[in-house]
Amino acid sequence: MPPASPPLVHTIQEVRRHLEPLRAEGERIGFVPTMGALHQGHLSLVETCARECDATVVSIFVNPTQFGPNEDYDKYPRTLEKDLEALAPYGVDLVFAPAVEEMYPQGFQTQVLVGGVTELWEGRSRPGHFAGVTTVVAKLLNIVQPQVAYFGHKDYQQSVVVRRMVRDLDLPVQIRVCPTVREEDGLALSSRNAYLSPQQRKQALTLSRSLQLAREMIHQGRRRAVDILAEMKKLYDQQPDVRLDYLAVVDPETLLPVEEVAGPVVVLCAAWVGQTRLIDNLRVEP
Amino acid sequence: MPPASPPLVHTIQEVRRHLEPLRAEGERIGFVPTMGALHQGHLSLVETCARECDATVVSIFVNPTQFGPNEDYDKYPRTLEKDLEALAPYGVDLVFAPAVEEMYPQGFQTQVLVGGVTELWEGRSRPGHFAGVTTVVAKLLNIVQPQVAYFGHKDYQQSVVVRRMVRDLDLPVQIRVCPTVREEDGLALSSRNAYLSPQQRKQALTLSRSLQLAREMIHQGRRRAVDILAEMKKLYDQQPDVRLDYLAVVDPETLLPVEEVAGPVVVLCAAWVGQTRLIDNLRVEP
Repeated sequence: MPPASPPLVHTIQEVRRHLEPLRAEGERIGFVPTMGALHQGHLSLVETCARECDATVVSIFVNPTQFGPNEDYDKYPRTLEKDLEALAPYGVDLVFAPAVEEMYPQGFQTQVLVGGVTELWEGRSRPGHFAGVTTVVAKLLNIVQPQVAYFGHKDYQQSVVVRRMVRDLDLPVQIRVCPTVREEDGLALSSRNAYLSPQQRKQALTLSRSLQLAREMIHQGRRRAVDILAEMKKLYDQQPDVRLDYLAVVDPETLLPVEEVAGPVVVLCAAWVGQTRLIDNLRVEP
Repeated sequence: MPPASPPLVHTIQEVRRHLEPLRAEGERIGFVPTMGALHQGHLSLVETCARECDATVVSIFVNPTQFGPNEDYDKYPRTLEKDLEALAPYGVDLVFAPAVEEMYPQGFQTQVLVGGVTELWEGRSRPGHFAGVTTVVAKLLNIVQPQVAYFGHKDYQQSVVVRRMVRDLDLPVQIRVCPTVREEDGLALSSRNAYLSPQQRKQALTLSRSLQLAREMIHQGRRRAVDILAEMKKLYDQQPDVRLDYLAVVDPETLLPVEEVAGPVVVLCAAWVGQTRLIDNLRVEP
């Protein structure tokens, strides 16, 4: 017999009712917020959470407020049944899959805004995106009240923004950022990879290859960011169907561009492959 | 022997350390956020809190971000020792009096913004005020994690804004709004009353008298807000040293002006008496 699907609830009240007895018993509650369309990247977070905590809660919510007006909210993959099956082996204690009206009822008026680290990169390319992310993450953290919440390194800037918010608002939760999971050929797992044709799938490797190139250059002793970025850019120039959005070598905390690689950096990239926007990043220590 | 002062801490970590064992034992924690300069209005909140909860936490923090650049942040009364004495009889379990740098350390970048109910009245007269209020209240609620937090009806719009924020962000706390405490002659207690000269103190009665007039008119069957406001305004016109900021008859939930008094309303007023800005309000049911 296959393992049973985890309990599924749709309302905030049900989440509270489910978790209250666990909290009262002093259980350590871990939380993995997702937009569903679960892949091994998400599942690695769930696995880590289940290993580190007494109870594991997963949310599945395609949050409309973090999509721009011309983005892929409508076509974003929604695969709840498959997601529940995928979660079954991990002993998940609760899945919370609210409707949009449950999260944003009539009269909703509040936003959590983080400045600074939201202003560059994804924030510049996707205005309003991080306001949507921080607001929904604040809500989800308040609903689940976990001791630990798990985020993927794949959305590196998001993890920095969430950490900033948690610190600034004194949210009583620890944020754990877990490694990006990649296909064998290096492509970072993303729910948006489902949009790619077989040919685009090959072109999409430009992102991870450019990051590997940056790492090699740094390990070979190259230090000037302009040089590294110029070499990376050549890979994109060779792929006319891949349209670069940004490339950057940044400080891991401030996300500001560095001129010289003098300590750990994160190399960021974002590019369009056809109609699909992909991001990736790599932490590199010289 | 006078009752001992309550335990006083200055850091977030100390608050958490103090309250963790109480929370683990399932105690009901109540919280009264204040800016200090405590008067009977605050103390009535503390008394209610102590009666309704197992543990009572009071914060004393003159929050710079809710004062405008030309407001009274610098001269706002700071009377910590007297405040601790005043709290002594109530069996307060913890007083949290953080420094500004504890609440807003270097790198702080986050704001909680509520739209709609913040846009009129105090929000219009004091731009940025409610952003400061909601952000600091969110922080304090996350630091103390009370089951209940107590606010005064005196700052009516603030209580509506805080309720909106708590609902929208799913903060796991109940907000209780307690009656305005008044001097015998009707003046609403306010820490800012300390700024008034004896003569201004008399002039300041214009606010509460105008509210009483509104109540009488409504109880006598008057329903049109314009008529009520016109009669109220005459009281201010008779006091050349009292400068009216706004008068309004509003819906208790939306704070939008009503044309006809058909159900419960809140009558709001704000006025300058010399250099001192005072507010008051009264809920009236027809």
